[in-house]
Amino acid sequence: MAAPEIEKLVTLLARLPGLGPRSARRAALTLLRRREALMLPLADALAKAAAEVKSCTICGNLDARDPCGVCADERRDPAQLCVVEQVADLWAMERAGAFRGRYHVLGGTLSALDGIGPDELGIPKLAARVAEGGVTEVVMALPATVDGQTTAHYIADRLAEAAPEANITRLAHGMPVGGALDYMDDGTIQAALKARRPV
Amino acid sequence: MAAPEIEKLVTLLARLPGLGPRSARRAALTLLRRREALMLPLADALAKAAAEVKSCTICGNLDARDPCGVCADERRDPAQLCVVEQVADLWAMERAGAFRGRYHVLGGTLSALDGIGPDELGIPKLAARVAEGGVTEVVMALPATVDGQTTAHYIADRLAEAAPEANITRLAHGMPVGGALDYMDDGTIQAALKARRPV
Ligand SMILES: [Zn+2]
Ligand SMILES: [Zn+2]
Repeated sequence: MAAPEIEKLVTLLARLPGLGPRSARRAALTLLRRREALMLPLADALAKAAAEVKSCTICGNLDARDPCGVCADERRDPAQLCVVEQVADLWAMERAGAFRGRYHVLGGTLSALDGIGPDELGIPKLAARVAEGGVTEVVMALPATVDGQTTAHYIADRLAEAAPEANITRLAHGMPVGGALDYMDDGTIQAALKARRPV
Repeated sequence: MAAPEIEKLVTLLARLPGLGPRSARRAALTLLRRREALMLPLADALAKAAAEVKSCTICGNLDARDPCGVCADERRDPAQLCVVEQVADLWAMERAGAFRGRYHVLGGTLSALDGIGPDELGIPKLAARVAEGGVTEVVMALPATVDGQTTAHYIADRLAEAAPEANITRLAHGMPVGGALDYMDDGTIQAALKARRPV
């Protein structure tokens, strides 16, 4: 109906989470009204991030550097490792500012239905990383869902074998059951981290 | 907190209507997960649309061609002209598929507060276009807001002077009062167009 250049743009925008067809059309018109201030900078930022940003080979975080800024930061406590499901959860932990160790991003949770097993989540790699020594506490910051807690228990069992000297803790309840870490406010995350307890 | 390449992307995405900071972060992660299928095509579509799409010098529609596809379409009825506030409203009319004439996009409504007068909306140009002859009906499809209806009446007065032979109609009530055209379903638009009446 509109020009193919506009239709294409609307179709792609509508695939972003949070934007339906109508808001994608509105976004396209906003972009076309603000070409120099918004549209071209966004095109540039997308191309640049696509080219520069990579997964950290140590922890799975996204950064322009590999190892990522968190892994490379010498002021981080090497004795503490926090296991999160997604990069968004790592960002949420960092925003809360209550954790000064390093991370391991699983990229998902165990799910027999979806065929996601320990290998898909890099759990053997995590076990090897902890077994190398120096890590005295592994904080499980996985979602308070059935899959999340199943995954946390599976990892705790694996680590108990691979690195029996490391304490395995989890974020205290205080997270709403079924809630995702990325949707919690900083105070809840801080309180849950402070009251963490052994698995 | 994240890499500057990611922060920049999140900041720009958060400026789109419908995306707040949290959904912008989620959108950025979705894009980074789907670089070939979504991120690079979106960067490309943005750059291409920014370069190719322009305002039609006749009607104000957005298209890669000038005159736009609607103005250039010989099968359109040259006797009917529909006045809309925004390009999104033109798209909504076209989706409803009930109008076969051409358009005039004002780009806003009269607003003394915002300093938007007849010249800013191209109303003299519209009057000249209708006065050229050949237009027998001007359908006012402006929002059912105070500003929209004030603008419709102002335009009707101007056209009554400039082109007394043209009938001025407006979309029938049936639009929810205070509602924007772009938010209405096709059936409402079709019914409102069918029951249009003289201003
Ligand atoms: Zn890392
Ligand atoms: Zn046109």
